Amino acid sequence: MTAPSTPPAAPFDWIEEQRRTRAAAGLTRTLRPRPAHSPLLDLAGNDYLGLSRHPEVVEGAAEAARQWGGGATGSRLVSGTTELHAQLERELAEFCGFEAALVLSSGYAANLAAVTALAPHGSLIVSDAGNHASLIDGCRLARGATQVVPHADPEAVRKALGTHDGPAVVVSDTVFSVDGDRAPLGELASVCREFGAGLLLDDAHGLGLLGDGGRGAPHAAGLAGAADTVVTVTLSKSLGSQGGAVLGPAHVIEHLVNAARTFIFDTGLAPAAAGAALAALRVLRGEPERAARGRDVALTLHQLLTGAGFSAVRPDAAVVSVLAPSPEDAVSWAAGCRAEGLAVGCFRPPSVPDGISRLRLTARADLTDSQVAEAVRVISRTSPKGAISAGS
Amino acid sequence: MTAPSTPPAAPFDWIEEQRRTRAAAGLTRTLRPRPAHSPLLDLAGNDYLGLSRHPEVVEGAAEAARQWGGGATGSRLVSGTTELHAQLERELAEFCGFEAALVLSSGYAANLAAVTALAPHGSLIVSDAGNHASLIDGCRLARGATQVVPHADPEAVRKALGTHDGPAVVVSDTVFSVDGDRAPLGELASVCREFGAGLLLDDAHGLGLLGDGGRGAPHAAGLAGAADTVVTVTLSKSLGSQGGAVLGPAHVIEHLVNAARTFIFDTGLAPAAAGAALAALRVLRGEPERAARGRDVALTLHQLLTGAGFSAVRPDAAVVSVLAPSPEDAVSWAAGCRAEGLAVGCFRPPSVPDGISRLRLTARADLTDSQVAEAVRVISRTSPKGAISAGS
Ligand SMILES: Cc1ncc(COP(=O)(O)O)c(C=O)c1O
Ligand SMILES: Cc1ncc(COP(=O)(O)O)c(C=O)c1O
Repeated sequence: MTAPSTPPAAPFDWIEEQRRTRAAAGLTRTLRPRPAHSPLLDLAGNDYLGLSRHPEVVEGAAEAARQWGGGATGSRLVSGTTELHAQLERELAEFCGFEAALVLSSGYAANLAAVTALAPHGSLIVSDAGNHASLIDGCRLARGATQVVPHADPEAVRKALGTHDGPAVVVSDTVFSVDGDRAPLGELASVCREFGAGLLLDDAHGLGLLGDGGRGAPHAAGLAGAADTVVTVTLSKSLGSQGGAVLGPAHVIEHLVNAARTFIFDTGLAPAAAGAALAALRVLRGEPERAARGRDVALTLHQLLTGAGFSAVRPDAAVVSVLAPSPEDAVSWAAGCRAEGLAVGCFRPPSVPDGISRLRLTARADLTDSQVAEAVRVISRTSPKGAISAGS
Repeated sequence: MTAPSTPPAAPFDWIEEQRRTRAAAGLTRTLRPRPAHSPLLDLAGNDYLGLSRHPEVVEGAAEAARQWGGGATGSRLVSGTTELHAQLERELAEFCGFEAALVLSSGYAANLAAVTALAPHGSLIVSDAGNHASLIDGCRLARGATQVVPHADPEAVRKALGTHDGPAVVVSDTVFSVDGDRAPLGELASVCREFGAGLLLDDAHGLGLLGDGGRGAPHAAGLAGAADTVVTVTLSKSLGSQGGAVLGPAHVIEHLVNAARTFIFDTGLAPAAAGAALAALRVLRGEPERAARGRDVALTLHQLLTGAGFSAVRPDAAVVSVLAPSPEDAVSWAAGCRAEGLAVGCFRPPSVPDGISRLRLTARADLTDSQVAEAVRVISRTSPKGAISAGS
């Protein structure tokens, strides 16, 4: 415990270099705290059904906190499983058409849990190049080997599966988070069955929007309850809360309880978040038209934007991405929108797999047609040179 | 899309084999949902200060849900940062004595964020063999190389650092989650400074119990606010809520905002959880004696248990582990306690680094002396043959 005679370099000095590189490339990110009642029109969040502030959802959170306290107090395996968690799991599984469900503290944790638990040593993971960061991190943590295949390409999946002997699992978002396009679920399922591979689908952006009354993309594709299909969902988007869940056959869920580190070694989801999600699920069950309305708003948004000349992928759910000429343009475009009262997302490298920056707009079931029209007017008015032809 | 002529093996069949192996070894885990008002005396949870059901904490959760809604609605970088998150970050940083703080959706996510962001390509991570699963997963995800060193062994850390040229970070729990023993923080800091390495400490089990008024183990060791020290905490134990945070110099926190995938690609912590944690922090600030009481209860528990002949590590914070002769004994011991009205944790492989099963008891600041005495009576009465001499 003697002090060194010459002070060595400060340990985190290398951070400064990264900071400068980022700043020079226009890629610095900063946090912008919002007030409780923002004057901005919000097309940035993922509250697709407008349920986060629904009175029953808010009361679901508050009542759960009153009943169960502020936290779950421990791992789900020790003190952290309440009857509320069990109820949420039953209703989620039933709504989405699966035998069983397991709730985790986030969608991110649910994806880490599902990928790692379903890809043991010696197995192959076939992962879509456009998959969400949490699935990618799941692949990195898993004992199995990962092969990344081109985006939405069932033939590439077939080829990858053909090279492997042993357990295999194909992993894909159902609706991709950046462009909002949909995975070819029918073809993927078909290829998986040809090879006896499992199919793991992340329905974060499908639940609440796709399928009968918002039961999700796997339900719409006839995969709900299939013995070879496992689905992850998040409680933080259409259900307006926080948390994630894995849905699948009971023996697979039981396996996760025993094998998934982000389940075993993590404190259970806070009661308030479980209560809010359960309330949101019940609202959705009672008002299935919210799902269609969310999709319709997205289609209108897309139609008006492409009509105005912008490049945007036709939305399958609620995400509408508009291409921007450069990261700097995307930032100033988003800032321009904000100055005119519109909050939009701005995705730049490294958050976009193809390196192309975008405005990311999200539809919400509770937006009015005139709000959508106003949003498009603001986006047009503030658009940078080159945005009209960016992707054409 | 043609059906295969012969149906291939079901994709998740290998799970059955693992299930059988686990069952044969007595290691099957099952979930046991608890009611809102359990009749059991709880020495299993991590609600060390008894704040999870404190009226102000519960109201903090409920009021935050009313003000901000059920969820944060997006990534902290898009729509998910509220003024509530910013306030919690300011007060946490100030309380623990650091320049800045960043709140994430769980302690697990905070550890993944901190380790990955502080260990770039070409760096070395020196990780204690007893570290929590989330730190280990962080090491696995990080670009740097990991060297695992024997538990609580600063000399081994020195040797590891001596082999490396380039950025290095030493990673350790402050209080280890299984045995409740404390890391040699002073020596670790000293070795780090000798080599210009960073020190990353997980204070999940120290915050609220150690240091002046519960400011944490790094504060107690004089490391709060040091330029070379970064600390993670969880909001799910002493603060009775859910979530995690990273504390450190402002430029390090800024770096995490830009580089940590579990921050960038995860929905922000639910407002109710942020509100509960903030309320708990304020209660603790107003009633600093809760920290000492939590430690005293643990010491009493330890004294009574060792007095009765059990093997238990002297607690530095609130965790008291009692060795069990075998996994099966640990399970039946915990079940015996439960049958007599006492909830205790039961840690078995693979949750224990050394393979030795334990009852894991947790002290709580709001336990009375007679509750502690009753707990020890139940543990003695239900103890399996061999427990008295298990570790001696
Ligand atoms: C496709 C996808 N999966 C998983 C997640 C993670 O879910 P959560 O934010 O609830 O942790 C997200 C976004 O946050 C996502 O877009
Ligand atoms: C030492 C340690 N670090 C991190 C965590 C993870 O924190 P959280 O449960 O809040 O995600 C835990 C326990 O859960 C822990 O014991």
